[in-house]
Amino acid sequence: MSHSVMQGTYVFEKEEKHGFFFKVKQMLYDKPSQYQHITVFDSYDVGRVLMLDHTFNVSTEMEEFYHEPMAHIPVGLVENAKDVLIIGGGDFGVAKHLMKHKSLNSVTKCELDGDVIKVCREFFPEWTECEKDHRFHLLIGDGFEYLKDKEETYDAIIVDSTDPYGSANILISPEFYQRVYQSLKPNGVLMQIMADVFFYKETWPKVIPTIQKIFDVYQPIFIPIPLYSTIFSWGILLLGKGRDSLNPSLITEDYLSSIPNLKTMTVDLVKSWFSMPPYIQQFFNQF
Amino acid sequence: MSHSVMQGTYVFEKEEKHGFFFKVKQMLYDKPSQYQHITVFDSYDVGRVLMLDHTFNVSTEMEEFYHEPMAHIPVGLVENAKDVLIIGGGDFGVAKHLMKHKSLNSVTKCELDGDVIKVCREFFPEWTECEKDHRFHLLIGDGFEYLKDKEETYDAIIVDSTDPYGSANILISPEFYQRVYQSLKPNGVLMQIMADVFFYKETWPKVIPTIQKIFDVYQPIFIPIPLYSTIFSWGILLLGKGRDSLNPSLITEDYLSSIPNLKTMTVDLVKSWFSMPPYIQQFFNQF
Repeated sequence: MSHSVMQGTYVFEKEEKHGFFFKVKQMLYDKPSQYQHITVFDSYDVGRVLMLDHTFNVSTEMEEFYHEPMAHIPVGLVENAKDVLIIGGGDFGVAKHLMKHKSLNSVTKCELDGDVIKVCREFFPEWTECEKDHRFHLLIGDGFEYLKDKEETYDAIIVDSTDPYGSANILISPEFYQRVYQSLKPNGVLMQIMADVFFYKETWPKVIPTIQKIFDVYQPIFIPIPLYSTIFSWGILLLGKGRDSLNPSLITEDYLSSIPNLKTMTVDLVKSWFSMPPYIQQFFNQF
Repeated sequence: MSHSVMQGTYVFEKEEKHGFFFKVKQMLYDKPSQYQHITVFDSYDVGRVLMLDHTFNVSTEMEEFYHEPMAHIPVGLVENAKDVLIIGGGDFGVAKHLMKHKSLNSVTKCELDGDVIKVCREFFPEWTECEKDHRFHLLIGDGFEYLKDKEETYDAIIVDSTDPYGSANILISPEFYQRVYQSLKPNGVLMQIMADVFFYKETWPKVIPTIQKIFDVYQPIFIPIPLYSTIFSWGILLLGKGRDSLNPSLITEDYLSSIPNLKTMTVDLVKSWFSMPPYIQQFFNQF
């Protein structure tokens, strides 16, 4: 069972030890691209679902729980942010929410897998609508390569990739973080999907010593994200250039209430994502 | 598949539309009691798991995410709490955590299903150890009946039942809430597992109009609980007698740091559980 996508009318995650299953109302797409297996189906209770490499990624009914924090936290942390880069984010979800910030001049998305783009244009048109915005720029290519010659270009860089194991491994390399640092404007912030500390905790010891050498400040935060197989909060890394804090108090009531149709965030929830419960604090005490 | 427990070496929830599955290292118990189907197995990555009626309840590696808030929030909300009643809580987890409060005089647990007690004594001895504490009192019987003649007896009542659909339906009846109100001391608090507002939202409209008539104050809170099939935060109801607030600021740093080996709670996390993000706020605006 472990690596088959479907059994009867159900879709299973590929996880060997635990995971989610969903009953399929209609299977819409189920093919490998050059980089990963892409699956799209309509579920009975979470809307339309996108899976990458047989792992549930996001659904139309639940996308905000992941995309809203990924978009609104980095923009909120940088005063007067103008230019944002998304590395990955093939489903356009983060871009869609970034577009709500009228103050932004540009949102550039650099996605490796052109097939994900095509699939999302076909099956998630409400997310790809942001392509019509003149501030939106799409690049199909390698985010690591793209950053090579950028200098003080972005206020925020958001890494919305598959988990940093295997093919996305370059996105936790010292070379990548050096390029990010160089590409960020002073006071800029990186927000990067990372790992939980329950099932995938081996990721953090690979990353923390590296970023401690390159960035001026770092902050792991933990957000409960539906559909993520760890069954509760997922770790995300914040990094700051030329600043000494990444403080959730910058995400104010005024800021959140300025975002149209916000669904999942409050000041207190954001603050709690920056708060490490003892079992997480103990883990990070090693660094 | 929907109602079979096992397929090969995997255990599935009975949910028809989505759910979790776990690979089984060893099946330990899998039988119906008079009231429900009880399953215990060792998993590969979340420790030993208890299932009731083919739904994942709790595991040894993750029990604190549910049991700590259920124990420490009501005790923290009542100044100088002495006597606590648990209705349900067959796995002894809430009782185990309550026992950490040396200030409590008594913890009484009223569980309907004697088989759950026996199974937990055999397979979860680290939870049932609290039976040795002289302050702990076990009753096997109906919590609704037990409350009939109690008057101003408890500082806090914790309803840790199966979800209030079907057999636990009596636990959301007006008669039950009247008995709880009568049984609470002035300033007392009820904390009751309730429902999420995504998949099981029909529960709240049954409950809120009733409790508004009986209790002086109510507060739904939302806690991310691993293994709960809604994939993110689960709704819990707080009710207060003879008080005008249920304020998370009563759960202080000092209070939390007085609890030995606390794993999952911080002041900011507790505060965030009382905070309703817009999608939940909108739902509760109907009341």
